[in-house]
Amino acid sequence: MNKKNIIIGSTLLAAIGAGVYAWQKTTTKKFEKERIAIIGSGNWGMAISRIIGLNVLDNLDLFEKEVRVYVYEELIDGKKLTEIINTQHENVKYLSGIKIPENVIAIPDIVKAVTDATVLVFVTPHQFLPKMLDQLKGNIIPGARAITLIKGFVVDEKDELHLISKMISDKLEIEVSALMGANVANEVARDEFCETTIGCKNKNDHEMFKTLFDRPTFKVNVVSDVYGVELCGSLKNIVALGAGFCDGLGLGGNTKAAIIRIGLIEMKKFAHMFFSGVREETFLESCGIADLITTCTGGRNRKVSEAFVKTKKSWVDLEKELLGGQKLQGTLTADEVYRVLKKQNKLNDFPLFVTIYRIVKGEIQANLITQFETAYKKD
Amino acid sequence: MNKKNIIIGSTLLAAIGAGVYAWQKTTTKKFEKERIAIIGSGNWGMAISRIIGLNVLDNLDLFEKEVRVYVYEELIDGKKLTEIINTQHENVKYLSGIKIPENVIAIPDIVKAVTDATVLVFVTPHQFLPKMLDQLKGNIIPGARAITLIKGFVVDEKDELHLISKMISDKLEIEVSALMGANVANEVARDEFCETTIGCKNKNDHEMFKTLFDRPTFKVNVVSDVYGVELCGSLKNIVALGAGFCDGLGLGGNTKAAIIRIGLIEMKKFAHMFFSGVREETFLESCGIADLITTCTGGRNRKVSEAFVKTKKSWVDLEKELLGGQKLQGTLTADEVYRVLKKQNKLNDFPLFVTIYRIVKGEIQANLITQFETAYKKD
Repeated sequence: MNKKNIIIGSTLLAAIGAGVYAWQKTTTKKFEKERIAIIGSGNWGMAISRIIGLNVLDNLDLFEKEVRVYVYEELIDGKKLTEIINTQHENVKYLSGIKIPENVIAIPDIVKAVTDATVLVFVTPHQFLPKMLDQLKGNIIPGARAITLIKGFVVDEKDELHLISKMISDKLEIEVSALMGANVANEVARDEFCETTIGCKNKNDHEMFKTLFDRPTFKVNVVSDVYGVELCGSLKNIVALGAGFCDGLGLGGNTKAAIIRIGLIEMKKFAHMFFSGVREETFLESCGIADLITTCTGGRNRKVSEAFVKTKKSWVDLEKELLGGQKLQGTLTADEVYRVLKKQNKLNDFPLFVTIYRIVKGEIQANLITQFETAYKKD
Repeated sequence: MNKKNIIIGSTLLAAIGAGVYAWQKTTTKKFEKERIAIIGSGNWGMAISRIIGLNVLDNLDLFEKEVRVYVYEELIDGKKLTEIINTQHENVKYLSGIKIPENVIAIPDIVKAVTDATVLVFVTPHQFLPKMLDQLKGNIIPGARAITLIKGFVVDEKDELHLISKMISDKLEIEVSALMGANVANEVARDEFCETTIGCKNKNDHEMFKTLFDRPTFKVNVVSDVYGVELCGSLKNIVALGAGFCDGLGLGGNTKAAIIRIGLIEMKKFAHMFFSGVREETFLESCGIADLITTCTGGRNRKVSEAFVKTKKSWVDLEKELLGGQKLQGTLTADEVYRVLKKQNKLNDFPLFVTIYRIVKGEIQANLITQFETAYKKD
């Protein structure tokens, strides 16, 4: 190809690209402007409200200026939390020291918060979700869609697994995407550089979600695989327990890296086995390998799991001592995943997950972590 | 499928499996028994000699008992190193405190060491390789093959990259495989659990290599992608410098995980761009993601790079102070890869690698690591 041909080719490509973009713009526009409602106002909820508030201000042609956040009302030194947020522009309880843009408005009534919203952002602990969904049912405008930032899934009494996105989608009958990544709320709030992944089935919404969340220090990749993204956010916590056992036992970096790698392989296998449409590439996104690395080197599940080996204390005691009110998710997830695998008769396919579960339960010693290939079925 | 059908199916599968295995056995058997020669006797060379020696003893139907190791002769307290190894069964200089099986024999003459060898294991610093290959040329028996454990590639004065496996293969005209993974020699020597990856094009040799290297605490996966395996082992050191900059700057875990992830993506891109036959899955093997995690959390490149930011000392001084005679590979690799990319006019495709290179050279400040998307072309 000579230079002239390259130039002609490039021009042609650029023209096609512009056409596709224009087409996307028109097909995306369900609404004149998108109106954002955020459900949840904890640490992560406030950090993401700040991001969204700033991006909305930068794109007032695309978004309604006002971003509404549903805040569970509580009194802080006799003053209502919503009032504090709406006057001081700071959630002094859950993200103190960080200013929230003034277009982010706290609302104590969940139904009012979502009025006319075209995009619902769910970022609340998952135990509150079922009641919230009951309240929201029938109060969402047609054509609205949601995105979940909630880590975790629910395993019911029949040992069946329900993804949060599916729960929201089934109840509200709307499309639901997921955002997960190596994102510690406080670091995101301080504009420390990180990446995140959005899984969104509907290609017409990719650009909108990217505009809503992407910042120079919060890089968004949008992929089409919702379930893969969402599963990464939960399953990593099982692997983190395994990494913590390695740390507690004083094993070397290669051993720990092997456990993390095999954990990633079992995460992939689990996702492919139980969900359709999961893609290999998802595990190389921020929600996959990056979040796994962070969780296995610095996360709270890893920390408690290390202490479990070193101190021999109970999980309940360690959670109280070490997490200052935060919840240990990994042990619950390990238990839930074990129940699902057992019911589906797939325990033999996940020797590492089962070994970690059995160490958690005290059925076998932590030092069997490296012998997971046989240890998972030891008496 | 009812139970009977399953049993019939399984029996059929087992029969086919046995047939394939028998066929492999016959086609694999170029030689009555394989004779192993190891070239190199440093830290890693001795650790792998121990593994090989033990596996040979466990499989005397497949391997000649005597495993010969070429040892560069030196005097230790007036005694020849080869004699020490052959009487005390320990390399007191490079892997002290670890016993080597008695069937591992040290030989100070490289040509004698490889006499009649059917499998050559290269595990020597790569700067010694050209001279060794000159000595070996013409002294290898027909049908022999090699495997390289040497990390690194060579970039010549024309800025062209040569993989070690290719250099050996071109010179000796034999098939060359590669073994890389998250394997610190001392940890492997102490039987601490880890994994490794062998890239071997010839499927008939997969079983032989697995038998030769796999141990209960040294788990081998054999894949067919030699170049991917080999490139991982070098390119990771560039990423490790980036991880070290994050540590030196006191950046959070999410930032560091993002840099590691993007580093992995650039590693993949580099491998695919310049070599054919590289496979996506290779990067999820031990040689890929596991080695990268270890290198970016504990390795020596990371350590020196952290100190570079914190102390502002020169690379040369830091290497002397911190590595106790070991070589810093990352800065050399960053330079070599930069030259290759520049020559091929591909700098724009590798903003992180180029940013790391420019920080190494002092052209830009380390805190630009998180702004690599623009920083790589900053004035």
